[in-house]
Amino acid sequence: MNPGPERLARARARMEEAEVDALLLSVGPDLPWLTGYEAMPLERLTMLVLRRDGDPVLLVPRLEAPRVDDHGHFVVETWDETDDPVARVAALASGARTVAIGDHTWARFVLALQDALPTARFGPANAVLAPLRAVKDDAEIVALQRAGAAVDAIAADLRTMAFAGRREVDVHRDLVESMLAAGHERANFAIVAAGANAASPHHEPGDRVIADGDLVLCDFGGTMDGYCSDITRMYSVGEPTSEVRDAYAVLAEAQEAGVRAATVGTPCAAVDAATRAVITAAGYGEQFVHRTGHGIGTEAHEDPYLVSGNDTPLVAGHAFSVEPGIYVPGRWGMRLEDIVVATDAGPQRCNHAARDLAVVG
Amino acid sequence: MNPGPERLARARARMEEAEVDALLLSVGPDLPWLTGYEAMPLERLTMLVLRRDGDPVLLVPRLEAPRVDDHGHFVVETWDETDDPVARVAALASGARTVAIGDHTWARFVLALQDALPTARFGPANAVLAPLRAVKDDAEIVALQRAGAAVDAIAADLRTMAFAGRREVDVHRDLVESMLAAGHERANFAIVAAGANAASPHHEPGDRVIADGDLVLCDFGGTMDGYCSDITRMYSVGEPTSEVRDAYAVLAEAQEAGVRAATVGTPCAAVDAATRAVITAAGYGEQFVHRTGHGIGTEAHEDPYLVSGNDTPLVAGHAFSVEPGIYVPGRWGMRLEDIVVATDAGPQRCNHAARDLAVVG
Repeated sequence: MNPGPERLARARARMEEAEVDALLLSVGPDLPWLTGYEAMPLERLTMLVLRRDGDPVLLVPRLEAPRVDDHGHFVVETWDETDDPVARVAALASGARTVAIGDHTWARFVLALQDALPTARFGPANAVLAPLRAVKDDAEIVALQRAGAAVDAIAADLRTMAFAGRREVDVHRDLVESMLAAGHERANFAIVAAGANAASPHHEPGDRVIADGDLVLCDFGGTMDGYCSDITRMYSVGEPTSEVRDAYAVLAEAQEAGVRAATVGTPCAAVDAATRAVITAAGYGEQFVHRTGHGIGTEAHEDPYLVSGNDTPLVAGHAFSVEPGIYVPGRWGMRLEDIVVATDAGPQRCNHAARDLAVVG
Repeated sequence: MNPGPERLARARARMEEAEVDALLLSVGPDLPWLTGYEAMPLERLTMLVLRRDGDPVLLVPRLEAPRVDDHGHFVVETWDETDDPVARVAALASGARTVAIGDHTWARFVLALQDALPTARFGPANAVLAPLRAVKDDAEIVALQRAGAAVDAIAADLRTMAFAGRREVDVHRDLVESMLAAGHERANFAIVAAGANAASPHHEPGDRVIADGDLVLCDFGGTMDGYCSDITRMYSVGEPTSEVRDAYAVLAEAQEAGVRAATVGTPCAAVDAATRAVITAAGYGEQFVHRTGHGIGTEAHEDPYLVSGNDTPLVAGHAFSVEPGIYVPGRWGMRLEDIVVATDAGPQRCNHAARDLAVVG
C-alpha cells in the first residue's frame, strides 16, 4: 500500500492547526496509514519523525531496513544493534516544544523520549491524525467493502456447518483459517461463544462443546489489504425458544434502526440512542451493556465511537460498526453487527450476509 | 493459566527494593505472567493497580469482566462505557510518588495517567518485572519445551514439502495454520524469505514464487499455553552451490558454539561473541548484522538479550534464542535458531529438529 505524499501534507496542515512541532509515530495503525509502512511490534524501536518543517525521517533497526519502501516520500535512517535509537529520535526532534506521539507507542519509549526531550510537552497523536483517519476516501471505502465481502462469505458458510459436538475453539480456528484463506493478511479476533458464554460480549473461545439448543455468537474480523473487517452473526443449534426468537427480533429491529439513523449530520450519540431505544422499549435495556459501535479502518476500533456523550456529527466517509447486543447472564447472549459507511446518499452497509437467526445443526 | 499468588508477592518485594509505590499493568505480557489474565489490546483500558500495600485491583471494562478469573488473588472492578477509567486508576494509585507502568501500555494512557497523577514520577515496569520474568521456573521451562516440540514437528514436515512453484505467502499461510493446528493459540510471525529476500532478516513474505536454486529461510513462532516458540531452519530448493554449502557449515558451527557458550555464569555478551567469532573468522562478520539472540517466555522477545555490551551473567532458568545469521544483500541470507535454557547441568535446547541444510523440491 502506498498512500502517497498527500496524507503527509494533510498531517502537517493539522500539526499547524494543533500547534504540534513534531509528530512521532511507531507501532500501530497511524504509521501505515501515513506512509504505507507498518512497524514491527518488537523491542527494537521504529519511529517516524515528522516535523512541520524538513523531510520526514523514518528511523528503523538496520536489520529491518530492507523491508521499507519509502516510495520517495520519506528518508530512511537506520540504527545498529548497539546504538541508542531514543537518542537518535531526540536529535531528529530537537528543539520541538510540542510533540505528538502515536497512541500505541510502547510506554517504555514514551518515558525514554520524555527523558531525552525534557523541555518538550508530549500529547497524543490522535489529536492530529484521528480526525483525518476517520474520514475514508473512495479507495479506503472499497477496501472496507472488499474485507466485508470476504467475511460475509464466511458468515454464510457457517449456516451450512454442523455446530453440535464441536468445541468453541474448533470453530474459532476454522474462522481464523477461513479469514486467511479469503485474503486477509491477519485474523484480528474470532469470538465463538455458545450458550451462557455468549452473555460475555468479549468471550474467549474455550473447550466448551457446542450442544443442541445452544445459541452461538460468532464475531470475527481481520485485516485485508490494510483495512479491517468485523461482523457478528448468530446461529441457533436447533429451533430457538420463543424467548430467544422474540429477543432476536428486537435485536434485528434495533440494528436496522441504528443503521437507518446513521446519516450525515447525525451526532454519533444519536445512533447509539436509536438502537438503545428499541432494546429498552422491549425491556432489555439493562442487558445492552456496551456502546452501539466503533469506527473502523486501518485499526479495528478507531474514531468515531457511537456512544452516549459523543456529539460529533457523522460526515460522509465515516465508517463504523452498528452492533447492538442483549446479554442475559447465565443463560444466553446475542449481537448483530455490520460495518456501515455514512455517505451523502445515506448509510451504506459493507456487510450483506443474511441477518436472520440461522438455524443450524 | 493460574500463576498463583506467589508472583504477586515477588513483584511486591521487588517494588520495595526499587522503591516503586504502585505498579500499573495493561496490555502485553506482564499482566498474564502476574495474574493469568491478558488485557485485550483495544481502546478500552484494562489496568492492574498493584500497590506495595493493599489488595491488587484489576480495573476492566464492564463488558470484559466475565472473561476474568481472579483465582482469588486480586479484586476485579469494572467501568461502564461512559465512565473515565483513567480517573479510576488515578484514584486507586493516589498518593503514589513513584509509579512503574507496563512497557507495552499505550502512549495515550501513559500521557493521560501522567496528567491525572501530576506529582508521581513514572518509570518502566521492566525495572520491577523483567528480572523476575527472565528466570523461568520448571513449569515455564516445560511450556517452552512443549511449544518448541510443536514447531520442531512443523520444521521437520517442511523437509518433505515441495517449495518450488509456491509463493512465499503460501508457505507463510501453511506455517500459520500448522502452528494453530499444533496447539498454539496464536501465531506470532512466520517469515518465509526466498533467494535474495532472505538477505532481509525480517522479510515480509510476499508474492515471490519460490524457484529451483533458491535458498529459503523459514523463521516462525507463536504462543502455546501462554509461552512462545521461535525456530529458524533453512531449505535449499535443489542442491545448494558450494558457496552456500560452505557458508552454512560456518553458520551451523557458529550456532553450536553459541549454544555451548551459554552456561550459567557466562555474560550474555560472551555468547554473542562466541557466535560472532566463528562467522568473523570465516570472513562473514560484516554480514552478521544483528545480535545473537533474545530472551523468550510469555513475550516473543524479552530479557536477557544476547548482545554486545550486555554483561548480565546467565543464571539457571534464563531462556533465550541462539540465532546467528549471514546476509549477502542481493543474493542470499541464512539463519539458524534454537531456543535454549541455561541450567546447572549446562545449556539445554528446546528445539531438536534436524539442523542441517535441508534439500527440498
